[in-house]
Amino acid sequence: MNFYTRKWIKPEDLNPNGSLFGGTLLRWIDEEAVIYAIVQLENPNIVTKYISEINFVSSARTGDIIEMGIEAIDFGRTSLTMRCEVRNKITRKTILSIDKLVFVNLDENGTPSPHGKTEIHYNYLGIEPDKRD
Amino acid sequence: MNFYTRKWIKPEDLNPNGSLFGGTLLRWIDEEAVIYAIVQLENPNIVTKYISEINFVSSARTGDIIEMGIEAIDFGRTSLTMRCEVRNKITRKTILSIDKLVFVNLDENGTPSPHGKTEIHYNYLGIEPDKRD
Amino acid sequence: MNFYTRKWIKPEDLNPNGSLFGGTLLRWIDEEAVIYAIVQLENPNIVTKYISEINFVSSARTGDIIEMGIEAIDFGRTSLTMRCEVRNKITRKTILSIDKLVFVNLDENGTPSPHGKTEIHYNYLGIEPDKRD
Amino acid sequence: MNFYTRKWIKPEDLNPNGSLFGGTLLRWIDEEAVIYAIVQLENPNIVTKYISEINFVSSARTGDIIEMGIEAIDFGRTSLTMRCEVRNKITRKTILSIDKLVFVNLDENGTPSPHGKTEIHYNYLGIEPDKRD
Amino acid sequence: MNFYTRKWIKPEDLNPNGSLFGGTLLRWIDEEAVIYAIVQLENPNIVTKYISEINFVSSARTGDIIEMGIEAIDFGRTSLTMRCEVRNKITRKTILSIDKLVFVNLDENGTPSPHGKTEIHYNYLGIEPDKRD
Amino acid sequence: MNFYTRKWIKPEDLNPNGSLFGGTLLRWIDEEAVIYAIVQLENPNIVTKYISEINFVSSARTGDIIEMGIEAIDFGRTSLTMRCEVRNKITRKTILSIDKLVFVNLDENGTPSPHGKTEIHYNYLGIEPDKRD
Repeated sequence: MNFYTRKWIKPEDLNPNGSLFGGTLLRWIDEEAVIYAIVQLENPNIVTKYISEINFVSSARTGDIIEMGIEAIDFGRTSLTMRCEVRNKITRKTILSIDKLVFVNLDENGTPSPHGKTEIHYNYLGIEPDKRD
Repeated sequence: MNFYTRKWIKPEDLNPNGSLFGGTLLRWIDEEAVIYAIVQLENPNIVTKYISEINFVSSARTGDIIEMGIEAIDFGRTSLTMRCEVRNKITRKTILSIDKLVFVNLDENGTPSPHGKTEIHYNYLGIEPDKRD
Repeated sequence: MNFYTRKWIKPEDLNPNGSLFGGTLLRWIDEEAVIYAIVQLENPNIVTKYISEINFVSSARTGDIIEMGIEAIDFGRTSLTMRCEVRNKITRKTILSIDKLVFVNLDENGTPSPHGKTEIHYNYLGIEPDKRD
Repeated sequence: MNFYTRKWIKPEDLNPNGSLFGGTLLRWIDEEAVIYAIVQLENPNIVTKYISEINFVSSARTGDIIEMGIEAIDFGRTSLTMRCEVRNKITRKTILSIDKLVFVNLDENGTPSPHGKTEIHYNYLGIEPDKRD
Repeated sequence: MNFYTRKWIKPEDLNPNGSLFGGTLLRWIDEEAVIYAIVQLENPNIVTKYISEINFVSSARTGDIIEMGIEAIDFGRTSLTMRCEVRNKITRKTILSIDKLVFVNLDENGTPSPHGKTEIHYNYLGIEPDKRD
Repeated sequence: MNFYTRKWIKPEDLNPNGSLFGGTLLRWIDEEAVIYAIVQLENPNIVTKYISEINFVSSARTGDIIEMGIEAIDFGRTSLTMRCEVRNKITRKTILSIDKLVFVNLDENGTPSPHGKTEIHYNYLGIEPDKRD
């Protein structure tokens, strides 16, 4: 699983108890999963269909840096299933994990449509080996 | 199940496809569930522990009014389990349902702590019978 | 008067003095009143025309839960007049009250148009008697 | 009356009908009035006490530039009363006017406290005569 | 240089260290410069092309009032170059300065287009001499 | 240069002309640069000191996915200089580039302080070679 998007926890992201508001984290994850699905399926018309159980393992506080990882685990005919993990960028401690996020590929009329993909494709121009900063 | 908080879907709530962004909806639901739990447990120190599978049944568009319903379904020793349904206020069509949202009651040190509640309590000063507008 | 939408006061809602920013509260009230008017007039084309004097009775702090109540008090030919009260959900202490919020019903061209309503209609499928949580 | 703060109406500021959301405008006005009061009373501990009736004269659309004017009209012992006008920066057409916004000067304990001011003071280093751009 | 738009620094504007988040300030400046350019060029189709070096001289904290000044320094054929200064409204201490912000005037097709302006024009109905509050 | 954080351009991110608002992009870049600096310097007390000229090469529209790349180019005694590039995730077309972003390492009193770093350190547990998705 690769981790891309990072967030710096700011006061605007907190709940009244001073830790990261869970709802804000869910909003970030949903966006990250949509991005991953659009890139893999090469189609911008994608909707969230199902999210499996979410375990909130630990919290984050203001000033923490978190990173979000998404990985495709199953390519259906019209759907893509991914798993997600959010962790603290410094400590690598898990903050939250989700086993399954299912997105559906739509055609222009909003009808589920085959996407023709069967496996993850990689960007070879991306991060150089052993050079993740 | 009672429905309280309502939202008017505005452009700021949309995804690029013009429908309600799923992440924004999840953020709203998490806040509504926290509020319900705080009111029932009479304790502001509460954290989201677990959210069961989420089914996105239908979407919403700009100008739609949605309403969120939460109901306690199980009182644990230190936890409260609720279910959630979000529906279109006008058509009453379901937008999303969640079977279980588990929140944990904390003491001042952030340790899970018994809440002493065993059933839903009602506000008799609330909405008059047959007068929900 | 029924109270529906609830808010959990978070750091993002505060003014520099640490209490709920008045402007944020006004924004919430305007949305709640629009929602009420759309539901009652069964028309999404509605604009705020007039808001009478606003009394800020008490404030709210981070972690407080507030609830907003709106009630129709006069059905004009093309307008709807409501009153509003915002109170602390736990203490029921009034935070703010507004005597009159006047919204105008528009047709598709944006011209004031008769709405044909003369009294509040209720949703009988709503909150069960004596079961407001 | 001088007009300072300007806003460029963006999609995030719109209601579902595509015009400026009234609640967003009220939020902006409240901030502008607080700023004016803090500058005049030379005290950051100020709260909104009362806002008189608000007339929504015309609306604004995406891409419009609006400017907000505030003017002190009465210096009480512990309060400051201002009036407000919001207009379209290009056409100078009035969007909204408020006759009275009353803010109260507080001491460090949050108690109303005399501010000792009796008239508007000006910043002579400010905008040069006939050179408002 | 005239200073118009003012901001009251609130918790939502802070970085985790408790001072004004630089990115938020940059967002405000970009909006203020666009507004200035639209007013001067009398054309809403304008894009940011270039921003010269930005010096962060001092910071701001919650409760501070800042004001932003923009001034045209060069009228190109299709472009407008401005400089910017942000200062603390009370102390007049500089927070940030930018030597050059270049915006380009576009026609309806999004192509750079001559704007026909050669100097700053003023609004004579604006702030009265020696009466900047 | 590695590209991590990704954004899906939504209506809330647009200017009135329907393209990505430049100020919003600057806000995202500043956050990404701060995160990079905190990770490299292993210190959360870091401030933006200087940003060199910014070239807006192309724009982005709603539904586009952009990714932000940051790379350290110089380790000073108390500062870190980075460069930044933002590109379209699908087309890899450059949206914006910044030659220098200088951040300063602070001690607990907010005074510039030596950070002791001289080169980029990598996370060997990160993205696997040739497996960037």
